[in-house]
Amino acid sequence: MSQNAVNSLGLQSVRLPVPVYIRNSASVVGKKEGDGPLGLLFDMVGEDDMFGCESWEDAESSLQKDAVYLALGKAKLKPEDMKYIFAGDLLGQSIATSFGIMNFGIPLLGVYGACSTCGESLSLGAMAVAAGYAENVVCVTSSHFASAEKEFRFPLAYGNQRPLSATWTVTGSGAFVLSTQMGEQPRAVITGITTGKIVDYGLKDSMNMGPCMAPAAASTIAQHFADWNRKPEDYDKIITGDLGSVGQKVLIDLLRDKGYDISEKHMDCGMEIYDPESQDTHAGGSGCGCSAVTLSAYILKNLEQKNWNRVLFVPTGALLSKTSFNEGQTVPGIAHGVVIESIS
Amino acid sequence: MSQNAVNSLGLQSVRLPVPVYIRNSASVVGKKEGDGPLGLLFDMVGEDDMFGCESWEDAESSLQKDAVYLALGKAKLKPEDMKYIFAGDLLGQSIATSFGIMNFGIPLLGVYGACSTCGESLSLGAMAVAAGYAENVVCVTSSHFASAEKEFRFPLAYGNQRPLSATWTVTGSGAFVLSTQMGEQPRAVITGITTGKIVDYGLKDSMNMGPCMAPAAASTIAQHFADWNRKPEDYDKIITGDLGSVGQKVLIDLLRDKGYDISEKHMDCGMEIYDPESQDTHAGGSGCGCSAVTLSAYILKNLEQKNWNRVLFVPTGALLSKTSFNEGQTVPGIAHGVVIESIS
Repeated sequence: MSQNAVNSLGLQSVRLPVPVYIRNSASVVGKKEGDGPLGLLFDMVGEDDMFGCESWEDAESSLQKDAVYLALGKAKLKPEDMKYIFAGDLLGQSIATSFGIMNFGIPLLGVYGACSTCGESLSLGAMAVAAGYAENVVCVTSSHFASAEKEFRFPLAYGNQRPLSATWTVTGSGAFVLSTQMGEQPRAVITGITTGKIVDYGLKDSMNMGPCMAPAAASTIAQHFADWNRKPEDYDKIITGDLGSVGQKVLIDLLRDKGYDISEKHMDCGMEIYDPESQDTHAGGSGCGCSAVTLSAYILKNLEQKNWNRVLFVPTGALLSKTSFNEGQTVPGIAHGVVIESIS
Repeated sequence: MSQNAVNSLGLQSVRLPVPVYIRNSASVVGKKEGDGPLGLLFDMVGEDDMFGCESWEDAESSLQKDAVYLALGKAKLKPEDMKYIFAGDLLGQSIATSFGIMNFGIPLLGVYGACSTCGESLSLGAMAVAAGYAENVVCVTSSHFASAEKEFRFPLAYGNQRPLSATWTVTGSGAFVLSTQMGEQPRAVITGITTGKIVDYGLKDSMNMGPCMAPAAASTIAQHFADWNRKPEDYDKIITGDLGSVGQKVLIDLLRDKGYDISEKHMDCGMEIYDPESQDTHAGGSGCGCSAVTLSAYILKNLEQKNWNRVLFVPTGALLSKTSFNEGQTVPGIAHGVVIESIS
């Protein structure tokens, strides 16, 4: 890159010209997530997973609406203060987003990166704010166990069995207000971005997505270290989205082969959100909502409390559809990295 | 907006801090589009709509791959010169994009705005380049008649009848290399962006999408005039994506109600790409590929030749899925505006 791209860093990263505050955020989850280890940290837990709606898709839309509403309230800002909403979900044509956020009347930039979408939305949102295109934006992503099973695998009524490598799609939505101004109680600050490439090792099993995504996470994390001239020790935590217990082993092995030992630093949102002993979720949680609600409820809390000072947040996505799976295609992965730091 | 958002303009627009060149572009289309009025202008026309692939989805992926490959070649740049690819399509989970562009190894920011995606990808790409995050990016979008009919309505083999208000999804992909540098033969320059909100008038007919999208186009165009303090006379053309002949009437009426007469300036890509007399396409063309290939082949050519000096390019999208349609939801619209000018 020449001097024409002044904020470009290395091959895949950008250094934000000014810090971008996560001015506030909110998380809304379903009953199962509320019963899990992070249950008491979420802003809102549904009594059941329909959230008073008529369909699973409507329920997911309701999650996004509630998450944005709560995040704006906590940030003491209104929808009309937001220049853009960067939003997405896992459903075909992102309908949970369209019907969830339309009544806010905020200009929409729809994003899709499968379960990495939370990372993509924060990346683009932070880039827009830091460039002076917007004073405030809101980033929201969601997933819902029942709408996702219907979209990608089988309707719940079919009662199919899930192998031990499968993950459980999180019912939840996380929303983040990014701003040039910290407001009264800013949660953290975004300082850098590393955008991922698609990585495809040829795996085809949609019931074992951790290993499909782990190579992409390894690629993004290793490139992040190279672009920023950093090493695992420069982070208090390196946090993937939803690799689960099977994918975690693959990630740590792949990065060891690239010369980085992250075993002491790694955390996976999918492994934090459920209790593997009592909640029967097999390899862990997954979905756009998994990393989003864990970031809002748990990661930002640790940054606020200065338990951690700097984390690399890397939501991971598996790029498949029911059609591509049925046509025998592979399940490529993608992962987007966001550097989030405590406010000093 | 305060001085913190220095490049923000009005309620929904940004003024790019430096001009962003469309350094080059390419269009790839199917046989029917090649037989249409713009046929001789496209860079590549398929002999049939399978493009040597085994499925319609693979064929659409092939369109994206070819469009990016051709655009990079015409710009005399390589994939490794691209900091980002902003890409999307109409299929569930954007699989045409994932399998089409993955081998280029360019960091991917996936976007979704239904048939407005071309406008969204150009907006985000131009914003990234102008902010100094990237020297070069490539923006690509696609649609395919057969994969879209299968995704949204009925498989072609079902042989359903199409009402006269229906549009015909364009088989095509357009790719655009955006750059800080004009290179040898720059096609045009992007100078401003107006991002759309979702607008829902409550229509539910997926066989009559022009009127579903026209209110969103009217909203974006009127807000554009307000944000930039401009009027229809400041543009040589105001170009929507795929309203078709039915939607065009609605757009012109709605804007007249808002005090703007664009009847002498309006053009719709969907009405240019097919011959309504001989090609049996009813209300016109549609799809992510419709506005993209028309921009590359026809609009940029007119800007190069100085037939036009400034256009407002406004791709339009209908935010539905098969699931939302079957569950009785409305078909909301969205439209994203991009100001494109000839190089003086």
